[in-house]
Amino acid sequence: MKMSETTRPAIDPRTVPARTTSGYPEPWRSRVLPREKRALGDAAGLTRIGVNLTTLAPGRESSMRHWHTHEDEFVYVLEGELWLRTDAGEQRLGPGMCAGFPAGSKDGHQLVNRGSQPAVYLEVSNRDPRDVAQYSDPDVDLVWNAPHAPGKFTRRDGTTY
Amino acid sequence: MKMSETTRPAIDPRTVPARTTSGYPEPWRSRVLPREKRALGDAAGLTRIGVNLTTLAPGRESSMRHWHTHEDEFVYVLEGELWLRTDAGEQRLGPGMCAGFPAGSKDGHQLVNRGSQPAVYLEVSNRDPRDVAQYSDPDVDLVWNAPHAPGKFTRRDGTTY
Repeated sequence: MKMSETTRPAIDPRTVPARTTSGYPEPWRSRVLPREKRALGDAAGLTRIGVNLTTLAPGRESSMRHWHTHEDEFVYVLEGELWLRTDAGEQRLGPGMCAGFPAGSKDGHQLVNRGSQPAVYLEVSNRDPRDVAQYSDPDVDLVWNAPHAPGKFTRRDGTTY
Repeated sequence: MKMSETTRPAIDPRTVPARTTSGYPEPWRSRVLPREKRALGDAAGLTRIGVNLTTLAPGRESSMRHWHTHEDEFVYVLEGELWLRTDAGEQRLGPGMCAGFPAGSKDGHQLVNRGSQPAVYLEVSNRDPRDVAQYSDPDVDLVWNAPHAPGKFTRRDGTTY
């Protein structure tokens, strides 16, 4: 079957446009890009869960280290090698490995591609408009979706970027 | 790293015990087994989303054709060949293909392993205690989690199995 012949509900991820941008202000944006996110859940019309197929270039970080107040997060590695940073230290995730991060658990997480090839993984979460992402590393002065600044990044003092 | 050395939050799915049973009454139970489900989300302590790594034997069906009232569902194929049955007909899903089923959409879905090898896929959903699964095929007289019978299968007339 040619890709163009795939119709819903079946989805060939290669036909889903990639988002190649990041909402992070600098200097953090440059630490995650180049990165491609294909919103497979959106493509399927899902609203209660988000599913992204993400490709992360060598040397890049999936995000800054963070945790979510109201959203569970789960990642499953398909290709490449990612190092998972949490309070447990650094753990290597190769293809077929996974990890999950419960909502409200303050142990921030981050994936770093320390390999020489692009890393490809699925990332899944529920969606909750109350969710706030808190960033763990002291030098990453970011808060996402604080109640006074929905859909925006703020500093810890509440000011916006 | 040996499997036994993997500690949370990293998870090697091979270390997660497989559930090999089905809650379906007969004759439907025999149509889905042998089937292995590894509850990766549970293993990670997640409560707002469910993530299963499922292995389905040749000739077997992932479930009877159904839809969910309050839960989005998403599947991503890792190995093997599955045929997706919906109102769109039958669509082949090979490795790297996926599909999603929005909560409340009455187009029931089912995966059938018509290949000669076990099929392996990830299945993901949000969790909502209000969710009811309705079965689509006329001869599959099943309802899951009806308000008067939480956590049970009933017939369409409301009686329990």
